[in-house]
Amino acid sequence: MEDQRATQVATNEVPGAALSDYELAQIDAWWRAANYLSVGQIYLMDNPLLREPLQPEHVKPRLLGHWGTTPGLNFLYVHMNRLIRERDVNAIYIAGPGHGGPGLVANTWLERTYSEVYPEVSRDAVGMKRLFTQFSFPGGIPSHVAPETPGSIHEGGELGYSLSHAFGAAFDNPDLVVFAVVGDGEAETGPLATSWHSNKFLNPARDGAVLPVLHLNGYKIANPTVLARIDPEELDELLRGYGYRPYVVEGSDPQEMHQKMAETLEIVFDEIEAIQFRARVEGDVTRPRWPMIVLRTPKGWTGPKTVDGKKTEGFWRAHQVPFGEVRENPEHLALLEEWLRSYRPEDLFDASGRPVDLINQIAPLGERRMSANRHANGGTLLKPLTMPDFRQYAVRLDQPGTHRAEATRILGQFLRDVMQANLDARNFRLFGPDETASNRLDAVYEVSPKAWDATHCEFDTDLSVEGRVMEILSEHTCQGWLEGYLLTGRHGFFSCYEAFIHIVDSMFNQHAKWLKTTRHIPWRAPIASLTYLLTSHVWRQDHNGFSHQDPGFIDHVVNKKSDVIRVYLPPDANTLLSVADHCLRSRNYVNVIVAGKQPALQFLDQDAAVKHCTHGLGIWGWASNDQDSEPDVVMACAGDVPTLETLAAVDLIRQYLPELRVRVINVVDLMKLQPESEHPHGLSDRAFDQMFTTDKPVIFAYHGYPWLIHRLTYRRRCHPHLHVRGYKEEGTTTTPFDMVVLNDLDRFHLVMDVIDRVPSIGAHAAYVKQMLEDRLLDHKAYIRTHGADMPEITQWRWPYR
Amino acid sequence: MEDQRATQVATNEVPGAALSDYELAQIDAWWRAANYLSVGQIYLMDNPLLREPLQPEHVKPRLLGHWGTTPGLNFLYVHMNRLIRERDVNAIYIAGPGHGGPGLVANTWLERTYSEVYPEVSRDAVGMKRLFTQFSFPGGIPSHVAPETPGSIHEGGELGYSLSHAFGAAFDNPDLVVFAVVGDGEAETGPLATSWHSNKFLNPARDGAVLPVLHLNGYKIANPTVLARIDPEELDELLRGYGYRPYVVEGSDPQEMHQKMAETLEIVFDEIEAIQFRARVEGDVTRPRWPMIVLRTPKGWTGPKTVDGKKTEGFWRAHQVPFGEVRENPEHLALLEEWLRSYRPEDLFDASGRPVDLINQIAPLGERRMSANRHANGGTLLKPLTMPDFRQYAVRLDQPGTHRAEATRILGQFLRDVMQANLDARNFRLFGPDETASNRLDAVYEVSPKAWDATHCEFDTDLSVEGRVMEILSEHTCQGWLEGYLLTGRHGFFSCYEAFIHIVDSMFNQHAKWLKTTRHIPWRAPIASLTYLLTSHVWRQDHNGFSHQDPGFIDHVVNKKSDVIRVYLPPDANTLLSVADHCLRSRNYVNVIVAGKQPALQFLDQDAAVKHCTHGLGIWGWASNDQDSEPDVVMACAGDVPTLETLAAVDLIRQYLPELRVRVINVVDLMKLQPESEHPHGLSDRAFDQMFTTDKPVIFAYHGYPWLIHRLTYRRRCHPHLHVRGYKEEGTTTTPFDMVVLNDLDRFHLVMDVIDRVPSIGAHAAYVKQMLEDRLLDHKAYIRTHGADMPEITQWRWPYR
Repeated sequence: MEDQRATQVATNEVPGAALSDYELAQIDAWWRAANYLSVGQIYLMDNPLLREPLQPEHVKPRLLGHWGTTPGLNFLYVHMNRLIRERDVNAIYIAGPGHGGPGLVANTWLERTYSEVYPEVSRDAVGMKRLFTQFSFPGGIPSHVAPETPGSIHEGGELGYSLSHAFGAAFDNPDLVVFAVVGDGEAETGPLATSWHSNKFLNPARDGAVLPVLHLNGYKIANPTVLARIDPEELDELLRGYGYRPYVVEGSDPQEMHQKMAETLEIVFDEIEAIQFRARVEGDVTRPRWPMIVLRTPKGWTGPKTVDGKKTEGFWRAHQVPFGEVRENPEHLALLEEWLRSYRPEDLFDASGRPVDLINQIAPLGERRMSANRHANGGTLLKPLTMPDFRQYAVRLDQPGTHRAEATRILGQFLRDVMQANLDARNFRLFGPDETASNRLDAVYEVSPKAWDATHCEFDTDLSVEGRVMEILSEHTCQGWLEGYLLTGRHGFFSCYEAFIHIVDSMFNQHAKWLKTTRHIPWRAPIASLTYLLTSHVWRQDHNGFSHQDPGFIDHVVNKKSDVIRVYLPPDANTLLSVADHCLRSRNYVNVIVAGKQPALQFLDQDAAVKHCTHGLGIWGWASNDQDSEPDVVMACAGDVPTLETLAAVDLIRQYLPELRVRVINVVDLMKLQPESEHPHGLSDRAFDQMFTTDKPVIFAYHGYPWLIHRLTYRRRCHPHLHVRGYKEEGTTTTPFDMVVLNDLDRFHLVMDVIDRVPSIGAHAAYVKQMLEDRLLDHKAYIRTHGADMPEITQWRWPYR
Repeated sequence: MEDQRATQVATNEVPGAALSDYELAQIDAWWRAANYLSVGQIYLMDNPLLREPLQPEHVKPRLLGHWGTTPGLNFLYVHMNRLIRERDVNAIYIAGPGHGGPGLVANTWLERTYSEVYPEVSRDAVGMKRLFTQFSFPGGIPSHVAPETPGSIHEGGELGYSLSHAFGAAFDNPDLVVFAVVGDGEAETGPLATSWHSNKFLNPARDGAVLPVLHLNGYKIANPTVLARIDPEELDELLRGYGYRPYVVEGSDPQEMHQKMAETLEIVFDEIEAIQFRARVEGDVTRPRWPMIVLRTPKGWTGPKTVDGKKTEGFWRAHQVPFGEVRENPEHLALLEEWLRSYRPEDLFDASGRPVDLINQIAPLGERRMSANRHANGGTLLKPLTMPDFRQYAVRLDQPGTHRAEATRILGQFLRDVMQANLDARNFRLFGPDETASNRLDAVYEVSPKAWDATHCEFDTDLSVEGRVMEILSEHTCQGWLEGYLLTGRHGFFSCYEAFIHIVDSMFNQHAKWLKTTRHIPWRAPIASLTYLLTSHVWRQDHNGFSHQDPGFIDHVVNKKSDVIRVYLPPDANTLLSVADHCLRSRNYVNVIVAGKQPALQFLDQDAAVKHCTHGLGIWGWASNDQDSEPDVVMACAGDVPTLETLAAVDLIRQYLPELRVRVINVVDLMKLQPESEHPHGLSDRAFDQMFTTDKPVIFAYHGYPWLIHRLTYRRRCHPHLHVRGYKEEGTTTTPFDMVVLNDLDRFHLVMDVIDRVPSIGAHAAYVKQMLEDRLLDHKAYIRTHGADMPEITQWRWPYR
């Protein structure tokens, strides 16, 4: 029946008008209904259908929410709905101005989806009252297009990521159209400003389409927006410069605007179809100029023109709740009632509060509803990756510390084959800001090059429009793409320089908050975890210097809810393989893996590595000499460089203080250090005490800022005896060994720490300490003279005697 | 003499050629010298003038540095120098691609500045050898345009901030031209992409000029750049869309390129002068289309065309060190020698290694040298702010906890008058992402509106091209502008929503690292501190919900070097005034102030506030009842909402557990909690023990993530008895009191914490606890029903009995 109607409309088309009168009535009715429901959510807690005169007690005591952007979002939603029905479009809707939460909720309620997932919010007067009351109400729903909103993959609480999310969703979804509304406030953010360039990374044959709508309503909270206040020609140039073909829909008269928007959407979808035809049928995947829409409408469109004599519609005063004090101020109460009645609710909802057929007819059906599209609940589409056995990439070892390998290069071989095994499924991509090769994961290029649909040159290497490795020099865009890709039910892996992952601290925050929230939403299916590989890390940024040295992302991450956070510090290649395999199989987490890329000693064969990673931490018996007895000192380490320095320190102890019983503990899974009560991975106190002892000195060599270890262990019994070395913001362009020396994390300092802290140590330890201090001075002098570390540092094997 | 030459050149001008043969020779000589010195820094540690055949031992054992961008930076530098001399331009140079450090160092050495500030690196063969050896060498200098580089205000280690720094430098410096080279890699970052729009915030009369040069060398580490691989017409549209008039200088033949660049710079500076004439003389400050330059040259220009048969010049292989293994591989050694000799060093440096006169003649003199321009060592220009007495803005109190005020609104009045007092000096601006009014600092508009040179509408409020309040919806741009403004010797203040300051985590990192480094550079004069006011904080984002709730910036900040970090949590308006006054007077710090904007109880009169802030923390005797005795429990608090809840808890204790002796401690200066050894503000152990006791339970109500307090205090003797409440990632859209309840920070939980932890407490405490639990349930039920907090929460006074 739906398709018939669509055809009918097409044939009934008035010349010069895209919409028939009936369609116009349908669309306007839906739009008025959505606007009415939006205002209702912001203001009302009773009398939802205005069947009686509005009374103060019908109005919420606290008025929260954002009106300004909402009518525009509703306008776009209903026009997309018409198109979905007419052309059977598979689409999702991303609302960059996430503050328009009441609008999106209203549309999903009109589409029935809301009542399907929340049956208590029924699609009638009773449900409407609940719908209104729950919005921004304690125990209710938040004000944004939050995870609770069906059809949302983008909350929009923090602005700037709508377009990168949209492109992430479109990759490898050739049949999908991602309708991405970009707010003109959001458009001022850096991440949004660069994400327009995502069109150079989209393959029109293999990937879906993104249709950006720049919604120029002209104002932010309290200012005009930049893009609304430059010449229209300048804006046109800007958007063309970004590689789009912009179509402007501008005005405020609803009837005219409906016609214009419908007409424009027809043109734009014709263009999208033509682009996809050219790419998919004719085989021309040269970067097209994708269409986009500029929608210029008044802020708070259809809301009160003035409030208390001050301009409101079309100005920033309409941004949030346009006027308050409704319970107290009769004029405001009357203004609210007048505003609500301007939408003619009696024409929109029947006696029981159900939307009338005029509205119902325009809603897409089933999963064609943007609110019920499974791409926006990606976990329902998620298929596990086909995984090669990571053990086959293992570095072969006869014994610990005798063989060198580049951990991330080994990982690259595994990732290459993960890529290969899932090429047909088209559900795995690698992301990184121009650093995949620098991070030594370039083996993946053997299977898939880097995505590139800008100009090609004959001498280019590993660039192709078919590529599945995503590289743009924007951590924000990489992160946004990856989030969009994961949220729509696919898999990915993000490698980044450790220091510069802080660029996306706030994006990580939002994603972690999203994950935390979705855990309590039954209809949201789990999605693949977001896994970071942080490499080119603090200890091996000796060549780039101080600006490139920052291990603090871990500190940032562990502030988020423990049930979504995992942090791993594999000490060598085989442990990295095991951890990466685990992370790629995990769901609904953020995994942070920190691992080096430089040639480094390998410690565990594959079996030992798997066992070690399974436990998350453990005593390395082969490096300890406290068998069958209590140790005099525990040497703990986490991270590849600290592990190396710890083992070197242990070796020095064996040479010069052989009577000392040393226990070596390596920590891969940092969350093991926390109490069970604080993190699901936390080691029991009993096991922890057995391992770390309760009274012996523990010298802990840690990859990052040392106080994090204190934070994680302050409740452990050994804590008063814990001494942590780590990065303390000392660094520059120098040698690798000088970096650890500058931060007192080197082998010599570690042994001196032991000497200072083991009470029973013999008198000769003072001489040993002096000798070590002298050797350290020798090293420093050598480094300053030769510009390189002493061979005994770089050529060292464990144990070397 | 210099000016004469400039005139001479102008009259000698060949038709169609901007440069005379002599000038061309000068410029090319300088450029070759700079390139030679750059390659020398990357490769050589001896034989700097190649007076003997190159031997392996002349080459550094570790080759570090970035060649790719360097010849372009050198090219631009010398052309700017010509112009500076010709037109007596007051200019500084910002190198977006900071990896071009060797280039900038080379130019400053040619200009003599380098040897002036580092006499041991003399301007002769001996100094040249030192210059070469020290680069990226242990004990030497870093590889970027780091603080050690004279003339630098922009390190460029982390990419994306060159343009926002440039605009920050240009504000209020009408005579300054900021020459800002934007790398095409950097141009892909979000922060850079939006910072082009800074031109809408620049007043052509009052502010200086920024001349952006987009340096398209086509490649990043291992990929082409987006902007180099779109159609030239598209790039032109993009830059026009950003509001510029682009001039393209493209090619690779040095002689042609010198002419083109000279000619273009003449045109561009004519345009700048015309724009400034129109604004300053004719009074037309309508936003001009500022000129900019697109320089398209090969990456690694003048370097080896191929290495080992692979394309190098004009490709990403030239990005870093174009070839290694020079000591080991004779072919590479020969290639290096050939490359170095291609610059004809024998023509550039005299027998003693000094640059020849041909080169010397083109260097600007004195402070006109970009490396010696005092704007790039802003501390030398810094004048203290004229400060009104902050005490006159104090809220008057008869007794604590009886009066309400909005702390930031009070601060706004103070800031307004700071603005007023320094209007003539033009050295103070406020920065914030569209949030100044939302953060209730809008009193400043009475004195200065918001800067705006985009289109104006008749109904606009508080917008003017003369404005000194800087608002764009980009935390990155605000931060970049402010950094540029501070680094050039002015003052500023940044207000931001607490959660979204994480957007600039990494920018803060870089600025803190810059400050840490400059503390050890004697010729760098101290600059004004960067002060953040974080408001709209976690506890009062109940209306915006979970996405807006994150107090973790403090955790991020305290990872940086303690001598540059200060964190303040003033509990009310008067303490906020005192703290803000202190911060605006401070130098070389990053100050973080967290304070609420909502109406809240006031606790300290002005005298008490000053005293409290001077100590940084203290016992609030008026709230304690442990006079002349040991307390049974210490109730500590930091932050306005935790302070309120603590006092409310103490009041409950007085009602229901009057026998309990309670000591209340409020912490304003968070760093007081750290040991003296860890932070310059750290309280001595003795004072700390006296205040917090060593054996009594301490219930600490903290604004942020609770474990930060553990991290800061784990070495204190009271730590085993310390129980911290704070934000634990629980939040949504709800009421203010529900927010603290969700995180167990509310008054009822705090009293229950006391009951659970005071061993000597009477048996009746169990009944009190039950009663409190019941009351808490009542509250929760009330909130869920009424959508608002119980009046006793909001109308509460201290003490209310």
